[in-house]
Amino acid sequence: MKEAIILAHGAYPTHPYPLRILRTAKLLVCTDGAVNKLQDRDPDFIVGDLDSLTPALKEKFGSRLIRDTDRETNDLTKAVLFCYNKGIRKITILGATGLREDHTLGNVSLLGNYAIMMESVKMVTDHGVFTVFARGVPDNEGFIHVTIPCVPEEPVSFFALNPDMKLMAKGVRYPVEQVVFDAWWKATLNQCTGKKLELSFRNGPLLVYLTHPFAGPEARDIQAG
Amino acid sequence: MKEAIILAHGAYPTHPYPLRILRTAKLLVCTDGAVNKLQDRDPDFIVGDLDSLTPALKEKFGSRLIRDTDRETNDLTKAVLFCYNKGIRKITILGATGLREDHTLGNVSLLGNYAIMMESVKMVTDHGVFTVFARGVPDNEGFIHVTIPCVPEEPVSFFALNPDMKLMAKGVRYPVEQVVFDAWWKATLNQCTGKKLELSFRNGPLLVYLTHPFAGPEARDIQAG
Repeated sequence: MKEAIILAHGAYPTHPYPLRILRTAKLLVCTDGAVNKLQDRDPDFIVGDLDSLTPALKEKFGSRLIRDTDRETNDLTKAVLFCYNKGIRKITILGATGLREDHTLGNVSLLGNYAIMMESVKMVTDHGVFTVFARGVPDNEGFIHVTIPCVPEEPVSFFALNPDMKLMAKGVRYPVEQVVFDAWWKATLNQCTGKKLELSFRNGPLLVYLTHPFAGPEARDIQAG
Repeated sequence: MKEAIILAHGAYPTHPYPLRILRTAKLLVCTDGAVNKLQDRDPDFIVGDLDSLTPALKEKFGSRLIRDTDRETNDLTKAVLFCYNKGIRKITILGATGLREDHTLGNVSLLGNYAIMMESVKMVTDHGVFTVFARGVPDNEGFIHVTIPCVPEEPVSFFALNPDMKLMAKGVRYPVEQVVFDAWWKATLNQCTGKKLELSFRNGPLLVYLTHPFAGPEARDIQAG
């Protein structure tokens, strides 16, 4: 599956894991503002209204510039739509948090939209990884089942992007079966008890946040089943 | 009205505005983890399970320690409840964002709970100010009206903590009357057009985020009316 790494213009990554993803990306799409901060490599494409690019960068990356002046979408969404139109169905988003909190909240919640378009959507920050689940084969009761590798005692938080979400989880310290997702904090600050999380959800998208320190990035391959 | 400043253990503030609030606070309540980072002044109270305090700090602040080991609430909520029980009805929260994004999302959404207990609730970060509105005198249609000073062109975002919220706004570039709050990003990244925002909302709480660079902290006095 064709994959793209998207660099947004929040805080530039400092943690080794997102930095490695950035360095080794086969296809790197930067939003307009992000390319000014990019270090150690060139972008493959730059998407946005391009107003904030310096003339020098505009000349250097002339053939890689994708101008999109739609006022209804933010630059991150423009980059995701560009990927979608190129047939890409797997994206990892970097640099989308860490500065203005309204951007952070907006970008995290947009993952729900992206997950409807894409096969695989992750956001990797300096502190953890958001993975969003929206698709799969529902069982007779409409539940989609996913299994996520993790490490015992690793912190984990769940977020509903739809307040009607129903979530059942195996492998967590505090039960989530009865949680009503009427506030964002409702299923945060849980903990993994074993080496995998077995999750069943209905009325997603489901957003899972796992922190970095407890597991290597290799453990982050998600199997939907 | 008795006021407290609460320092949580996210990223320690670096912007001059939250640092000034911290330095000049008449009553400073720190969560358990936050006191380890506190500079230039002492806390008045330290609230939490106290497990992460060094023996030296425990001895130094012995009479200021408030032990609360409830597993159902996070340290920020423990600090807010402590303030409530002391008769405090005005709080400003610092250091509650900037590290793990699940803490950021959780703490921002908890403002809705705090606004039901308190007369005035703000969260000041390095990038902006969240103000939450939950109370007031509703009109015949159930709308509560608030006026907020601002600066022309200042970025502003609105968040619903209840997806049924209805919001009408005067003084913004992009109309919000028709917004359905079924995703967090739905009323973000707007802009002030004049020197005040006139907001009417129903089914709150309403969360308003204004960025720092455009207005002095003095402009942040909110009049509900």
